[in-house]
Amino acid sequence: MPDKVLIYSRFPKSLTQRFADRFDLLDTGGRPADEVFAAEEVAQVRALITAGATPLGAAEMDRLPALGAIVCYGTGYDGVDLEAAAARNIAVGHSPGANAAAVADVAVMLMLASTRRLVVADAYVRDGGWAASKPSPLMKPPPSLSGCKVGVYGMGEIGRKIAARVAAFETEVGYFNRTRYDELPYPYFPSLDALAEWCTVLMIAVRASTETTHAVNAELLKKLGPDGHVVNISRGSVIDERALLAALKDGVIAGAGLDVFETEPHAPDELTSLPGVVVTPHVGGNTRESHVAMQACVVANLTAFFAGETLPYQVK
Amino acid sequence: MPDKVLIYSRFPKSLTQRFADRFDLLDTGGRPADEVFAAEEVAQVRALITAGATPLGAAEMDRLPALGAIVCYGTGYDGVDLEAAAARNIAVGHSPGANAAAVADVAVMLMLASTRRLVVADAYVRDGGWAASKPSPLMKPPPSLSGCKVGVYGMGEIGRKIAARVAAFETEVGYFNRTRYDELPYPYFPSLDALAEWCTVLMIAVRASTETTHAVNAELLKKLGPDGHVVNISRGSVIDERALLAALKDGVIAGAGLDVFETEPHAPDELTSLPGVVVTPHVGGNTRESHVAMQACVVANLTAFFAGETLPYQVK
Repeated sequence: MPDKVLIYSRFPKSLTQRFADRFDLLDTGGRPADEVFAAEEVAQVRALITAGATPLGAAEMDRLPALGAIVCYGTGYDGVDLEAAAARNIAVGHSPGANAAAVADVAVMLMLASTRRLVVADAYVRDGGWAASKPSPLMKPPPSLSGCKVGVYGMGEIGRKIAARVAAFETEVGYFNRTRYDELPYPYFPSLDALAEWCTVLMIAVRASTETTHAVNAELLKKLGPDGHVVNISRGSVIDERALLAALKDGVIAGAGLDVFETEPHAPDELTSLPGVVVTPHVGGNTRESHVAMQACVVANLTAFFAGETLPYQVK
Repeated sequence: MPDKVLIYSRFPKSLTQRFADRFDLLDTGGRPADEVFAAEEVAQVRALITAGATPLGAAEMDRLPALGAIVCYGTGYDGVDLEAAAARNIAVGHSPGANAAAVADVAVMLMLASTRRLVVADAYVRDGGWAASKPSPLMKPPPSLSGCKVGVYGMGEIGRKIAARVAAFETEVGYFNRTRYDELPYPYFPSLDALAEWCTVLMIAVRASTETTHAVNAELLKKLGPDGHVVNISRGSVIDERALLAALKDGVIAGAGLDVFETEPHAPDELTSLPGVVVTPHVGGNTRESHVAMQACVVANLTAFFAGETLPYQVK
């Protein structure tokens, strides 16, 4: 009999098919397990698959008394209370690096689209403004990327891939990270403040935690200056969204490219009504190959767990 | 008295200001010079500034009997009949490479936006589809760029900068160019056909000429396959626009990113109504720094001409 695995977050069926082939899935559709399944079934659940950003604290863990493994689909695990899990002897796994290239690609896409005002440009052509010789929204040329200072906040696998891509655009790349990596060819800044003082474009690739919540606030955005852009492919919580909105409205910075938001799937209307932003629905890791790689990590973690072994992709 | 210079194409005043400081400009606003200015004035015109794509043939040259220099604003000069100019002893200058980085940036932006469906993604968030949990237009994940074969058609300054940027995305880069450059680290293909057989994403960076007109046709697009994308930042004439439209409609290829069109400023409605395209209004070189660099080439060419010297940026 296949092992039972709870699907804790809301996932499209197309993404869980590969797990259904191996395990007996109890799919909650994102609702509390005990509302969807019988108490006896819930009591037997030893492992679950979750999206890293979905809140999963002590109370939720206690509703699953047999739980031994929390497996995150993706690289993030910020929704999981790691202390609570450790206290209950629950292993936590994720998919490190599996989607790093795909996420870095979206980061660079958002940087280019924000600095070159792609959404406005596309609409100008599509809506017939160009053909009718209406005043162009692109009349004021933006600064070139070439020679521009780009700061990368967070130098994990995604941050490194962002840096490598951005450097190819003849930019200057610098970074801030808790740990300094001397092997990297980019200048290190000792704080996020120092990085923001130096750079014009800020790429957020830091792992979300209580430390990073609202790290990018009004004061920090001001340091980027009126040609400044901020790109976020990490977690919405890293940016104070209200401060960002005010900075964009008041011309404190020029634009923003956002794949993530404070309260997903909600991007504030006031934000999305601004022409100087480009927004995507948390699709950084959404490519065929990265789903395959993330699913492989999930399967490997679950298989090891049910075999009584340490998870190969355990959160440290 | 400053030398008289005719502004032959339609240019925004903001772009010609730097020339007005040095020369006595006769700005036609893109209309025939003899309709706008007195015959005596037109007869004195020895130099003009044009956009490279604006048609400028023998008949137009003959309407300016004193013409000695045609100076293109930008790298292109495909609108200028070089033989007719040579026969009349008219020097032709341009701004080689001045906008190469800015154009390459837009090429890569269009590649990313087309492959990751940015315009559709942005609209899904902006229009509230994501917040309302409406079916996502991005449900089917696209292939990763990482490992993807990208073909660059044309290896001039822009093509090289495109190749360097694209390679940073962990892609395989190959190229076709009339001349093979052994110093380049990318595989060379002996024909555009061979390149298209090999690659999935085709980046058009070739200089427009009668040889390249409709070089990208129905047969060629088919070789890219159903995951294929085509990006054009060169000239609209290189693609058979009707064939591209059919290929996109029929799913012969997946998408296109276009900064240039066959009949600018017109992008066909049938094309712009497709979700699988991303379009920009010929803004590849539109950055502050590249305008400054292009203007410097124009001024240098004109200054040399009026001093009786060879143009420093002469078309070869």
